[in-house]
Amino acid sequence: MTDALLRYGVVISGGGSNLQALIDRSADGTIPGRIVLVISNEPGAFGLQRAGRAGIPTQVIDHRAFPDRASFEQALAAALDAAQVELVCLAGFMRVLTPWFVRHYRGRLLNIHPALLPAFPGLHVQQRALDAGVRFSGATVHFVVEDVDAGPIVAQAVVPILPGDDAAALAARILQQEHRIFPLAVRLFAQRRLEVQGSRVIIRGHEADAAAALINPLPDG
Amino acid sequence: MTDALLRYGVVISGGGSNLQALIDRSADGTIPGRIVLVISNEPGAFGLQRAGRAGIPTQVIDHRAFPDRASFEQALAAALDAAQVELVCLAGFMRVLTPWFVRHYRGRLLNIHPALLPAFPGLHVQQRALDAGVRFSGATVHFVVEDVDAGPIVAQAVVPILPGDDAAALAARILQQEHRIFPLAVRLFAQRRLEVQGSRVIIRGHEADAAAALINPLPDG
Repeated sequence: MTDALLRYGVVISGGGSNLQALIDRSADGTIPGRIVLVISNEPGAFGLQRAGRAGIPTQVIDHRAFPDRASFEQALAAALDAAQVELVCLAGFMRVLTPWFVRHYRGRLLNIHPALLPAFPGLHVQQRALDAGVRFSGATVHFVVEDVDAGPIVAQAVVPILPGDDAAALAARILQQEHRIFPLAVRLFAQRRLEVQGSRVIIRGHEADAAAALINPLPDG
Repeated sequence: MTDALLRYGVVISGGGSNLQALIDRSADGTIPGRIVLVISNEPGAFGLQRAGRAGIPTQVIDHRAFPDRASFEQALAAALDAAQVELVCLAGFMRVLTPWFVRHYRGRLLNIHPALLPAFPGLHVQQRALDAGVRFSGATVHFVVEDVDAGPIVAQAVVPILPGDDAAALAARILQQEHRIFPLAVRLFAQRRLEVQGSRVIIRGHEADAAAALINPLPDG
């Protein structure tokens, strides 16, 4: 018996380059799953075109059309549930979610954040990392919990901060890694290999490189 | 005209494997500097033997012999100043320093911390990183400021956290990197290449690997 493909939804607000990575890795079979719905709260989000081009159903659910956050989120959940998604991926979705929504999808709601959590939750993270003078930043895919940018971590990526970096250059370097770890996290979920134990995620068959290490600055001879 | 070797002191409380790295890298010329004094607040610290073996003067300044923290630190500073140190390295020194001491050595006091600051300051950092379920940890060399485990960062190292790690295994993996970045930071200081700008350290001739990145977990095919 072969497992059915995971049915999953992606919620966006903008360009959707992480959406594109999920589309591509689902199309080529890396992720044993299928995106059955893409929802944007922004009618002009370019990600809607990416989805349309891939033949994926899209919906615009504009938060401005709702009297409050609760009714907006009920519409969001109604659409996702109608599409029978087993997993929801937040890929650059720029609205904070209420505890109701988070609980509704507990254990099947993933977010990506462009920093090495628990460092630098929130907004403007690249500039804040630069201002703090840290030598590394990165990206984190995590299950969503009530606190913003917290929750059990599935995957992380690390990149160095380089002399001369501005926020845009750092964001671009991080984004390249986001395109690797978000599909990786969804694949592991689709393969039923993730188990949340308290604040930790245990990965069945977790592969890691014991000898890996980076230092910044480099010794320069 | 060649620059004179940097005169520096190292303050320890214990085994001093980071002290050993500094001794070795000074002896082989990697660090253009000379350790002129090693001070331990613990009479039995093994690091004292390491220093003695290398022919470096040592002093025990036992905090328990002083009525208060202020008088202990005055004795510490008196010994360091008498040795005319230009830089003080805290290498596993387990006493919190007062603002007076920190200000006395502002800009010439380095500490190493076994975590990727600003994440996990304080104690028991490996266990806390494991409990938090993060995929990477590391080490940080930073200038000391009044706040504990804060201050402008000179160098950082990153290592993955592996499935099955306990605090001791993670600590050992981080320690290997500490032995790289502490001598590196001291070398850059000795070469007069570090400039503190607010909360950041600018490194003259900063070399970094723009293509470096690590992810954890690894894609496993």
